[in-house]
Amino acid sequence: MPPEIPPRSLEHPLPGGMRDLLPEEARGRRALAKCVLDRFALAGFALVTPPAFEFAEVLERGLGTLDPAEVLRFVEPESGEVAALRPDVTPQIARMIATRLHDRPPPYRLAYEGTVLRRRSGRARKHRQIPQVGVELAGVGGTEGDIDLLALAADALHATGLRAFTIDLGNAGIVRALLDGVEADVARDVSHALAQKDEGALRERAEDLRVPFASTLCELVRMHGGRDAAAEGCRLLASTPAAAPAARLLELFDAAVARGLGDHVRADLGDVRGFAYYTGTIVHLYAPGPGEAIGAGGRYDELLARFGAPMPAMGFAFDLDSLAWALRAAGVTAEREIRVVVVGGEADARVQRLRARSVTAVGARDRATALAWARAWGFSHVIDGATLIDVETGGVSDDAVGFVEGTARPR
Amino acid sequence: MPPEIPPRSLEHPLPGGMRDLLPEEARGRRALAKCVLDRFALAGFALVTPPAFEFAEVLERGLGTLDPAEVLRFVEPESGEVAALRPDVTPQIARMIATRLHDRPPPYRLAYEGTVLRRRSGRARKHRQIPQVGVELAGVGGTEGDIDLLALAADALHATGLRAFTIDLGNAGIVRALLDGVEADVARDVSHALAQKDEGALRERAEDLRVPFASTLCELVRMHGGRDAAAEGCRLLASTPAAAPAARLLELFDAAVARGLGDHVRADLGDVRGFAYYTGTIVHLYAPGPGEAIGAGGRYDELLARFGAPMPAMGFAFDLDSLAWALRAAGVTAEREIRVVVVGGEADARVQRLRARSVTAVGARDRATALAWARAWGFSHVIDGATLIDVETGGVSDDAVGFVEGTARPR
Repeated sequence: MPPEIPPRSLEHPLPGGMRDLLPEEARGRRALAKCVLDRFALAGFALVTPPAFEFAEVLERGLGTLDPAEVLRFVEPESGEVAALRPDVTPQIARMIATRLHDRPPPYRLAYEGTVLRRRSGRARKHRQIPQVGVELAGVGGTEGDIDLLALAADALHATGLRAFTIDLGNAGIVRALLDGVEADVARDVSHALAQKDEGALRERAEDLRVPFASTLCELVRMHGGRDAAAEGCRLLASTPAAAPAARLLELFDAAVARGLGDHVRADLGDVRGFAYYTGTIVHLYAPGPGEAIGAGGRYDELLARFGAPMPAMGFAFDLDSLAWALRAAGVTAEREIRVVVVGGEADARVQRLRARSVTAVGARDRATALAWARAWGFSHVIDGATLIDVETGGVSDDAVGFVEGTARPR
Repeated sequence: MPPEIPPRSLEHPLPGGMRDLLPEEARGRRALAKCVLDRFALAGFALVTPPAFEFAEVLERGLGTLDPAEVLRFVEPESGEVAALRPDVTPQIARMIATRLHDRPPPYRLAYEGTVLRRRSGRARKHRQIPQVGVELAGVGGTEGDIDLLALAADALHATGLRAFTIDLGNAGIVRALLDGVEADVARDVSHALAQKDEGALRERAEDLRVPFASTLCELVRMHGGRDAAAEGCRLLASTPAAAPAARLLELFDAAVARGLGDHVRADLGDVRGFAYYTGTIVHLYAPGPGEAIGAGGRYDELLARFGAPMPAMGFAFDLDSLAWALRAAGVTAEREIRVVVVGGEADARVQRLRARSVTAVGARDRATALAWARAWGFSHVIDGATLIDVETGGVSDDAVGFVEGTARPR
């Protein structure tokens, strides 16, 4: 017999990288985004919302030529120009600052929420829609701007309830300085090996190709850890063109400790990951659980000039999927919310009374229906006449009246 | 002299229909969406988030064949199938109910927030990105389901602060029954004239083409108003195939009045506007200000069958741009929020203290900078030493210390 083919109506696949958020996930993501955006707002970062598409030309000013295989692009019918689903929000914010916000004084403290579409690295290399919440701070350079953003990232993570996380600090200037003048192809291969922390491949590539600072580059792979690693890196690089960015990394490390982030910061002198527009500090945020960063960012002091508004800037974004994963792994769960199914109609006075007290309530026609519906949709209680049923425990009491009026607390 | 052409870097146009939300607008829209979604949640409507794209095949199941000129579509690289930016969220929710939520018991009470992309009607006919917040109630048919959703729409509008609004009720079955058996082209022309409430054109079209019930159709244009209009429509249609849907419209009108919506409901027996999938009740929400509806919806009892999960359903969505316009027109403004610029660094103890009290605060290096920044970015107060300055009025006091500690209230 041929294998059973599910009827078409039960499939309805989604375009690559797209997915549905069902109630539990949509609710959780919204609450998490709100928690983070509220902390950003408290620090004066104003929400802006760029569109999900941009003309490729704008994105390419930030990201370099977009690889057609990497980015979802299409011809915009009205202009005939190529538009792309953004793989990154930062170039859009840079465009906004340079155009529509340019008459306001710096610093620009801007926040955003949105999804970006990227290809996953690794074998599958499928598109993946990544929900992000991020900030950009433009007009403040150097360690001062860096440290404000690191403190903000830590503050937002604390607000979500996450306690154990790492702030990995790198500096894009270190490897860039060491590879200055090296052929582009070779530089890319060496950077790739560094990103993979693959010392064997790195040694092979660097020495084969007679890269000037080959042994220094190889040692960078191990320059990862606490202040000792940062200080050792500074000594190692003192007599190389990377002396200045290494010293800035150590300075930032010390400033982060002074700002109370000592439990979280780590230095990674060989860090090269991130967008091509990064010029200085690179940040990766990690927590146990997801195999990838829960957030990342960096300083991009040259990007805004490409939009005609030269000024230093830095930003970071959380990946809300990874952050939610880290929170689950850390056992941080949302408080159980009281949500009630009342046996009776939607217009039932008790339904209306509960909603007036800001308690979610719906009606159902009988107790069995009410219980089944409550279980499937995550409601906590059922009220049937004077009876109050705790859906999770099955516990029954006769407190329904007091519960509706808010005088009896649910047990 | 030729006109000055702005340098390319100051333009950066956006793809058709896309636009940026600057801080004030982004903030307002977010608050408005939250206000409405919170009311939906209280009524048990669970947030779900379908993706911004769907395969055209899914959308077409709901909307009929998509006119390539109406919808932004592109070939999805991984599957080679045509994907489209949704012009409507309802078919996506129908897909979710029929597939990923089908193991949960009805009724399905679902809410969503998202943008749809449509062509504007009229001469310009450009794409327009419409931010929506909506609900779908599937598994509850007839007047019972209709009235629950009308009450919910009114409740959400009240929560936003809007007092004067109209709920226009129609029934897609009326005109459909009168045009049953009429050639598709003619039916479309007649519907178009009805939608425009153009009695002249309607009379010409209907009589020229010898549509049965021509004079009845012409009279429908004027069947718009309070209960009298609904009752008169019922009498007019009593001996036509539209008797049953007209009676249902009157029944819904009376049920809406009984549910306390008497100040808002109006009947419009000739209403034909809305999606092709509407089968019964059609709703349009209006308020002074925007020239178009602030919300719309209808009953679509046949759509879910096309996804393999036959059940009655109804939904509506607010257009957040139009709703925001109506609120401005009604003089409903957000309360002035206290947001403070402190002369001092970001790490200043007063900045930290204010944030700890959930007051937005940032640092600035001197009074002039602080005042200019506060004005441009909508901050309400500046603190310089013991001096507290109200940015809007220019009023100065020496309450800064008490203000930071929350013991003195801003004047």
